[in-house]
Amino acid sequence: MTEIKGGVCAPKGFLAGGVSCEIKKGSTKKDLALIYSKNLCSTAAMFTRNKVKAASVVLSQANISDGKLRAIIANSGNANACTGQEGTAAAKRMAQAAADNLLISPSEIAVASTGVIGVPLPIEKIEANIDALKASLKSDESGHDAALEAIMTTDIRKKEIAVEIEIDGKIIRVGAMAKGSGMIHPNMATMLCFVTTDAAILPSTLDACLRRAVSRSFNRVTVDGDTSTNDMIVVMANGEAGNTLITDTDGENEIFYAALEYVCVSLARQMARDGEGATKLVTVTVKGAQSEEKAAVFARSVAASSLVKAACFGADANWGRVLCALGYSGEDFDPNKTSVSFRSACGEIEVCSKGVTTHFSEEKAKEILLQEEIEIIVNLNDGRESASFWGCDLTYDYVKINGDYRS
Amino acid sequence: MTEIKGGVCAPKGFLAGGVSCEIKKGSTKKDLALIYSKNLCSTAAMFTRNKVKAASVVLSQANISDGKLRAIIANSGNANACTGQEGTAAAKRMAQAAADNLLISPSEIAVASTGVIGVPLPIEKIEANIDALKASLKSDESGHDAALEAIMTTDIRKKEIAVEIEIDGKIIRVGAMAKGSGMIHPNMATMLCFVTTDAAILPSTLDACLRRAVSRSFNRVTVDGDTSTNDMIVVMANGEAGNTLITDTDGENEIFYAALEYVCVSLARQMARDGEGATKLVTVTVKGAQSEEKAAVFARSVAASSLVKAACFGADANWGRVLCALGYSGEDFDPNKTSVSFRSACGEIEVCSKGVTTHFSEEKAKEILLQEEIEIIVNLNDGRESASFWGCDLTYDYVKINGDYRS
Repeated sequence: MTEIKGGVCAPKGFLAGGVSCEIKKGSTKKDLALIYSKNLCSTAAMFTRNKVKAASVVLSQANISDGKLRAIIANSGNANACTGQEGTAAAKRMAQAAADNLLISPSEIAVASTGVIGVPLPIEKIEANIDALKASLKSDESGHDAALEAIMTTDIRKKEIAVEIEIDGKIIRVGAMAKGSGMIHPNMATMLCFVTTDAAILPSTLDACLRRAVSRSFNRVTVDGDTSTNDMIVVMANGEAGNTLITDTDGENEIFYAALEYVCVSLARQMARDGEGATKLVTVTVKGAQSEEKAAVFARSVAASSLVKAACFGADANWGRVLCALGYSGEDFDPNKTSVSFRSACGEIEVCSKGVTTHFSEEKAKEILLQEEIEIIVNLNDGRESASFWGCDLTYDYVKINGDYRS
Repeated sequence: MTEIKGGVCAPKGFLAGGVSCEIKKGSTKKDLALIYSKNLCSTAAMFTRNKVKAASVVLSQANISDGKLRAIIANSGNANACTGQEGTAAAKRMAQAAADNLLISPSEIAVASTGVIGVPLPIEKIEANIDALKASLKSDESGHDAALEAIMTTDIRKKEIAVEIEIDGKIIRVGAMAKGSGMIHPNMATMLCFVTTDAAILPSTLDACLRRAVSRSFNRVTVDGDTSTNDMIVVMANGEAGNTLITDTDGENEIFYAALEYVCVSLARQMARDGEGATKLVTVTVKGAQSEEKAAVFARSVAASSLVKAACFGADANWGRVLCALGYSGEDFDPNKTSVSFRSACGEIEVCSKGVTTHFSEEKAKEILLQEEIEIIVNLNDGRESASFWGCDLTYDYVKINGDYRS
């Protein structure tokens, strides 16, 4: 597997573009994106589990139910959530406008929105810019770059990736882009993630791969514990690679799953690193657990702890907060068998062994924790399974960004 | 029921005191407290549900198991948690030192600690100051004031209350003090809470009253979602009021329960108001629910949302975040039947009706949200039950306080 450039345009037969239609008053930032496949795609998707679902989520769930899609239209600046029947109508008009312009059926289009909740979507602005949006479609960098820009809200970094694999002598590519930096918590992050691939694959096989990959990537990211109303991940596979149709994930086809997981984990980490106000990517790895599921529950509890996150910001080796967070995770463990280490590019230090301090060097620990990527390693010494969870530190800027997001 | 002065010293027969023994290096702030009853007390208590329990919690659970107690000794500056066998021995020495000095049995003493986790407790400093601690015992304001000071950590406000009731012609008093401003989340807050009363009451009846009162007070407070290793609430009843022994909570005895709940709710609100870095007390009230339990689940989800808390800090009427938090609470509801209002001393404004915006005045909403005590009122229009939950806003200072707590 090789990382390549090109994002969602890396696989054959995909175009992307983005324009500004001033959904956010007074802003000329791009806010309307389109991803388009020349052929009908096998499609799988996952959506927020929040009981409050944006109009775009409800519509896209229906449109994707047959496992087929040609395009995704997405806007930022307005979530079109909690907007009632007017919002439902606006989401439909968004799909219809794109369909009319691309000469495809509206049911072949997924609609995604992200931004402020509860404000009517200015659908006329979107309709007025559909021609320009289609005209912006490109298969090169200007295409996926414009689309990516157009779905960002409080994101600072651009989050995309593409990889190349070979199955049975055929080159297959998987590309993806994502947005999401606040409201990031499992099930899923406030995230929009669009994955493209030129693999030929059955929708049901693609669906199984996606669910497994998400459980090990986006469902292991936490920024602030809030699960949004708009989350969705869509993967479109157009078959242009010319490989034998993938109908299972056995044998060589396992490579396709591995590529999808790789892409998802990369974007999940990128999202955690770009968490609102974050200065650090914090990876929490729990080892020595009885099962991967239990390890993930413990890792999540630590990664989501406000006190642990604030300590990471302050580069404070406050391992007691790590044990405390393990203690309220809901799963059982023996503190007296547990060890905690901190690791970064500067080295690794064990700060707690069998539940008590190792009388470690505070200076060395501080040096390790001052790095931009740090890892908290917990060993429960109670089994052979492990899991990692990604999060970030809690900073002044998180509060600043979220204290007055709407204005 | 009348509010009176005197805190834990308000009920007859109770003394309190506090001294400094420099548990926190270089600090001369009081950090060792004692509450003492002239008679053996009926006692009930509740402890943290964190799997990682401080040594003091384990010891106090054992000492209180017979429903009897004479005294509580408590220190701040060190949690004596994650300190291994050394910590267990230190907690025992703390009880023994107090027992020797007060000429009572160590099993009649509860031990409480609060502060940094994972650092050995300097028990010698506590033993060296036991005489001074006993000498500081007073039944007047200087007593309960010193004890309260000595249990505070990052608390800014002193949290105490006392009330007087009459049962069958006898005056009964209930007094209490609490500390806790970070790691505040149900089950229970990082809190120490000590309640005294001169009522004559069976330990089992007292226990039942306490559990019910805590479920409606301390278990409805959230500051940061972290549940500490050291939480405890202890209530001691010495019978000095001379009332007929309370053996149930029927009829007139319901007044005793009401007094206990009043005291607990008052302290729970005081804790939320004093949440680390908080500028505002935020009460979330969910009405129109099918049951009180469901209403509490919804209210908790809203009060604990980082995004809602940050919006409260910014006085931003971002009601979409309220609906979003209801949506991931885990309980079912119909967003299209739900309304949201904001209320404070400045008035009340409905911002969302049947799931969509009311096109309210942003200025009026801002004015309401700029107050120090605000209420978020959700009506699910789905039943007759309601519950309130208390929290606070998320501010720069929360991050500052917790970024480097240990240094």
